[in-house]
Amino acid sequence: MLSDLEKALESMVEVYHKYSLIKGNNHALYRDDLQKLLTTECPQYMQRKKAEAVFRSLDINRDNAINFEEFLVLVIKMGLAAHEDSHKK
Amino acid sequence: MLSDLEKALESMVEVYHKYSLIKGNNHALYRDDLQKLLTTECPQYMQRKKAEAVFRSLDINRDNAINFEEFLVLVIKMGLAAHEDSHKK
Repeated sequence: MLSDLEKALESMVEVYHKYSLIKGNNHALYRDDLQKLLTTECPQYMQRKKAEAVFRSLDINRDNAINFEEFLVLVIKMGLAAHEDSHKK
Repeated sequence: MLSDLEKALESMVEVYHKYSLIKGNNHALYRDDLQKLLTTECPQYMQRKKAEAVFRSLDINRDNAINFEEFLVLVIKMGLAAHEDSHKK
């Protein structure tokens, strides 16, 4: 039995692979893959963002793909926004 | 309707507050609060770790409490471990 936090982490990994596997590369989210992920998985967060700007801010090593480590930066940003929102409610 | 990733993020925020509210301070997980969180929420991850070492590594500003931003460092570490495990299966 997984705990809530373990389930949340497993879900993060699954979401990453769901989109990174579109082109068969387990470790790369390309521009259009990230755009699909952002539109589908982060609608609330993306209300205030542009997908291209998010892609550029995440692609730290400038290889035109987001690896899992870079994806975690998005998770942190969304986590901070979700935490802030939790105190506005 | 929340997406899987949004649910995962909300769950991370909820887990943090569940333990930070034990002593009524929304923004501080003290040593024993973190220990409870680690034991209950991260049993798999903690098989290879000591709670005191995790506390010291997370308490970046050395105020003897883990704020949400510091908690995200744990999420990153567990995320990396979960990702690695996902490729071992």
